[in-house]
Amino acid sequence: MPELKPFLSDNAAPVHPKVWKAMRAADSADNPYDGDALSAQLDERFSDLFGRECAALWTATGTSANCLALATMVQPHGGVVCHEEAHIEVDEGGAPGFYLHGAKLMLCPDGFGGESAKLTPEGIAAMIDPIRDDVHQVQPHAIAITQASEYGCSYSREDLAALSTFAKNRGLGLHMDGARFANAAAFLGGSAADAAHGVDSLAFGFIKNGAMSAEAVVLFDPAQADIVKYRRKRAGHLQCKGRYLAAQILAMLDGDLWLENARHANAAAGAIAGGCGGRLMHPVEANELFVRLSADEREALRAQGFAFYDWGADAARFVTAWDTREDHAAALGRAISGL
Amino acid sequence: MPELKPFLSDNAAPVHPKVWKAMRAADSADNPYDGDALSAQLDERFSDLFGRECAALWTATGTSANCLALATMVQPHGGVVCHEEAHIEVDEGGAPGFYLHGAKLMLCPDGFGGESAKLTPEGIAAMIDPIRDDVHQVQPHAIAITQASEYGCSYSREDLAALSTFAKNRGLGLHMDGARFANAAAFLGGSAADAAHGVDSLAFGFIKNGAMSAEAVVLFDPAQADIVKYRRKRAGHLQCKGRYLAAQILAMLDGDLWLENARHANAAAGAIAGGCGGRLMHPVEANELFVRLSADEREALRAQGFAFYDWGADAARFVTAWDTREDHAAALGRAISGL
Amino acid sequence: MPELKPFLSDNAAPVHPKVWKAMRAADSADNPYDGDALSAQLDERFSDLFGRECAALWTATGTSANCLALATMVQPHGGVVCHEEAHIEVDEGGAPGFYLHGAKLMLCPDGFGGESAKLTPEGIAAMIDPIRDDVHQVQPHAIAITQASEYGCSYSREDLAALSTFAKNRGLGLHMDGARFANAAAFLGGSAADAAHGVDSLAFGFIKNGAMSAEAVVLFDPAQADIVKYRRKRAGHLQCKGRYLAAQILAMLDGDLWLENARHANAAAGAIAGGCGGRLMHPVEANELFVRLSADEREALRAQGFAFYDWGADAARFVTAWDTREDHAAALGRAISGL
Amino acid sequence: MPELKPFLSDNAAPVHPKVWKAMRAADSADNPYDGDALSAQLDERFSDLFGRECAALWTATGTSANCLALATMVQPHGGVVCHEEAHIEVDEGGAPGFYLHGAKLMLCPDGFGGESAKLTPEGIAAMIDPIRDDVHQVQPHAIAITQASEYGCSYSREDLAALSTFAKNRGLGLHMDGARFANAAAFLGGSAADAAHGVDSLAFGFIKNGAMSAEAVVLFDPAQADIVKYRRKRAGHLQCKGRYLAAQILAMLDGDLWLENARHANAAAGAIAGGCGGRLMHPVEANELFVRLSADEREALRAQGFAFYDWGADAARFVTAWDTREDHAAALGRAISGL
Repeated sequence: MPELKPFLSDNAAPVHPKVWKAMRAADSADNPYDGDALSAQLDERFSDLFGRECAALWTATGTSANCLALATMVQPHGGVVCHEEAHIEVDEGGAPGFYLHGAKLMLCPDGFGGESAKLTPEGIAAMIDPIRDDVHQVQPHAIAITQASEYGCSYSREDLAALSTFAKNRGLGLHMDGARFANAAAFLGGSAADAAHGVDSLAFGFIKNGAMSAEAVVLFDPAQADIVKYRRKRAGHLQCKGRYLAAQILAMLDGDLWLENARHANAAAGAIAGGCGGRLMHPVEANELFVRLSADEREALRAQGFAFYDWGADAARFVTAWDTREDHAAALGRAISGL
Repeated sequence: MPELKPFLSDNAAPVHPKVWKAMRAADSADNPYDGDALSAQLDERFSDLFGRECAALWTATGTSANCLALATMVQPHGGVVCHEEAHIEVDEGGAPGFYLHGAKLMLCPDGFGGESAKLTPEGIAAMIDPIRDDVHQVQPHAIAITQASEYGCSYSREDLAALSTFAKNRGLGLHMDGARFANAAAFLGGSAADAAHGVDSLAFGFIKNGAMSAEAVVLFDPAQADIVKYRRKRAGHLQCKGRYLAAQILAMLDGDLWLENARHANAAAGAIAGGCGGRLMHPVEANELFVRLSADEREALRAQGFAFYDWGADAARFVTAWDTREDHAAALGRAISGL
Repeated sequence: MPELKPFLSDNAAPVHPKVWKAMRAADSADNPYDGDALSAQLDERFSDLFGRECAALWTATGTSANCLALATMVQPHGGVVCHEEAHIEVDEGGAPGFYLHGAKLMLCPDGFGGESAKLTPEGIAAMIDPIRDDVHQVQPHAIAITQASEYGCSYSREDLAALSTFAKNRGLGLHMDGARFANAAAFLGGSAADAAHGVDSLAFGFIKNGAMSAEAVVLFDPAQADIVKYRRKRAGHLQCKGRYLAAQILAMLDGDLWLENARHANAAAGAIAGGCGGRLMHPVEANELFVRLSADEREALRAQGFAFYDWGADAARFVTAWDTREDHAAALGRAISGL
Repeated sequence: MPELKPFLSDNAAPVHPKVWKAMRAADSADNPYDGDALSAQLDERFSDLFGRECAALWTATGTSANCLALATMVQPHGGVVCHEEAHIEVDEGGAPGFYLHGAKLMLCPDGFGGESAKLTPEGIAAMIDPIRDDVHQVQPHAIAITQASEYGCSYSREDLAALSTFAKNRGLGLHMDGARFANAAAFLGGSAADAAHGVDSLAFGFIKNGAMSAEAVVLFDPAQADIVKYRRKRAGHLQCKGRYLAAQILAMLDGDLWLENARHANAAAGAIAGGCGGRLMHPVEANELFVRLSADEREALRAQGFAFYDWGADAARFVTAWDTREDHAAALGRAISGL
């Protein structure tokens, strides 16, 4: 049997050794919840990283991070504009409906957004402009975008400037689901500030990138932090041994481990992309590849030990991670190229 | 400066070495969420432990465990009977209101329950019988009790049999908040089955007893598991690297580490209790002590390095944990005795 | 200036004289809320009408009637399948999200339903079959259809039999939004039983058909009535002088006034349709017409006193009511024919 | 059999002839929902009445009026301070939990309020000051008082000034449940402004005072009206023939019918009170009387045709209304006096 070469997802990768080390170092007792010395560092560390003042709070999942951030900008009777394939719409089990008390996800269909599950001001306008300005129709309160997008594409600083301006003009909040924010930032050149330019809040993902169970809710208006703190508790997400979550995040920030890991994953994706040629369905701007492959071709790859998900009937999705072996990525590129 | 001797709470204690070891052993990739080999063992392991079939799911906090379990038995228009000092009422930031969609906590005042924050069928009846059987008043759908209680007292098998019979007769669900279930079970003789006799669901706490971030929702009607699974996801509590939570719980069950740790904490509490004499406000039936102490007396203890919370103006609360040092407990007993 | 000939909607028509009379007759004091002699008759009257046992409760709006009925079949973590242009999706201000605590409306796009905003088993299957059977995606709990549909088309008994069988096979509830149920029943031959064949619940509309402020929630499983009663109170819809609502409904049932009024409106719609020829966008199976008309043509009609809404850029909607004057309808038919 | 002399409640009284007349006058078609000419008058009419700018919206019940107003000041994670016997706590079927998405009612026990279910700044402070200022405990966002109180007592302008100052200092909203606001205003001298001095919102009741199905939500910060409008629609309370509700309210305001009716009811209550002497449990400051009466005495009164509710084991509640006959009231006063 050929060696297993895993490209299913980055969401079940092991924990990075430096993260383990930081968690162990947090083992001595400290104040419970977020009263410990590590949690206390988050606001400053993220403010430094982004070059603007922000508040940052840990939570255990991307789903809760997205929903807690959105709760600062969306009333229960309002709506959140997102792409019809956005993670919050198709993969979070209705969590926004729960956290936002029945607020509506307002879906931009494929043709209304940009390419590859990215939204544009024009596309959003085309979707929301026909909404009657009366109480019979739910009005948008916020926009949620995903960086990198559900198809592995990244919003540039210019893309974000345009969206941010549009959101401000329309009185809408702008939230970024950053489950793979690190991969986008790495692709864009390594600046966290650029990759989150102009957004009001960010769910900064660490789990797919080497952490165990800690994401950060980053609020660029720190005055909103209180809402998230009360709602986090209310959602049962205020862990009493919170220092272990803060430790994970700090370890990822230390020495830019978050970027280093993301660069490794992106490089692996690039190595695969090199073998895909015209099979690529979307530009590879992070660590995901969507590749046209027939059922027979997929079977041939699996016979060589490659593990991945089908993407519909005629394609496959490959995801690289911080621990993807370079030889595995190279082998996959060669294998696809040779089909 | 005297050595710090911590009795503030068990909720920030370090993680037990065997739990660390199990988490590290779970580091190789497996299926995400709860599709891994460790999570798959939970139902059977808890069914064995309780001697009756049950479903068991991990979640990161006691608050979410309580609320997810209650969601199987309480409609949004119903209520949950609990003690007026129950943790779900005074210390969970309104989480039941969130998870149960506005259902009401129906409080048994002190005189209506048993002693020490324990409920009794008679007390519950006295509270709910005056509720008019009409739509203008919220009707109870479930009862929630805490094992051990908020004052560190344990429900015996007989106590639970009476409550369970009462609940069944009234058509009410019976949930047990077991944040310190292990301590109660240890006090009652070590049988998990006895300590949870007759309840419909249990939030089985491990975090205060040596785990890092994993509690178990135990459902004695496994048919309810689906509701909890969907609601856990919806609440953002389905972690993608769930195997690390399952590993914690399994480590606690292996070789009855949960009981061993609880016995240690209870023994420490007993050692302190020995020095308290008539100062004790409640029987010590787990790992918490509520002790009448004047402000001067508390100051004297703190001057000796003992850390603890005031409990109102004339008392203090001391909590022991799995890692409480025996010499610290003995010293505290002596210090109180010598006041 | 030409005489105003109103075809804007049936939702602001006057109250029928027999309804006024019945309301006045209810003026002497009786028990408050729904404890009065008139409210007590509803279950039996509707059971007689439908030829099967049901429970019936008044509420003041169609929106609340739909949502209260859906609450008997949809858990907060579930979803409701409906047409993408269903009233509950586009015209109720997010009420289902509120009443169902964040449950999701799962939209059948135009191509997935039948014609004219009607759903079919095949269309629903095409929409829900791709939903992964896991907790990451919201699962459907119920189907909601509109009788007559948002484009004025009626589900036949056979249509409903097919949908009902499909719903049962899939374990889904089947709710009917009957804002214009009377018009559909009149079109189908006058049998309430046929027009609601196989559904689990019906929001039976009276307001558009001559009442002032009373719709009926009809539950064909009377065991569900308690849920609606508690939720109606909780939603602030249990009026203390409920007898005036019951009086309206009973007046509409007496002597089949509901059918008589609907037949009048349908006949008026038919008279208009006679002049529309190939301009009709949908069959006229109730009291609404969607007619292709250019901006100039619409202006010409308005200049003659006809009042109506534009329907997009190239069409208009005309609605008839219980009080539409026959000469107005005839005039409109002639006017369109002569364009 | 003696003539029935009803003192059960004012909530099922007939509709006043002037209200009927106004409703009939509204019968010709107008714009639907709240787009009609009558609804358009409400803001100005109430601004005139209160001598300060306000927005006013109709809704069909006091429960929805209270909850919609509270939704402008209470976040889902917050709480509403009210008396433990407040109508919103004991008689609205959990509606605040529904409308406020799980926000908590924070109860002032009897000893913590003023007399007769009235709240005082001191009592509220005594209740909320012990709440820890952290996320584990629900924080108050608003205060709700009832005018007249649940025991028929009225807050004077001075009472309200003190509460309003307290609320502002604490950053809390101040809502008034005015189900019997007219009776309080009549008792206080007839000034609506005085009777609602300093509050942020008022649920102005008309139904108990001669209307059929219309209360007004009055918002003294008109900028909040939009929230109520969207939430009213979302709650299914935006009736399409809203002009009939506006007509009721305008009829009650015309010529101060609301005051005239309330004065009549209060006078009847006064006539009864004259016969009660030391039996009165609370001052009679509106149209309710709580009277100490043994079971035998109550039986004797019922034998004379008086209808009323028991109030516990040793008392009775009598309520007068706009249509209470003076001879009935006088007879009741004599009958009690003669016991």
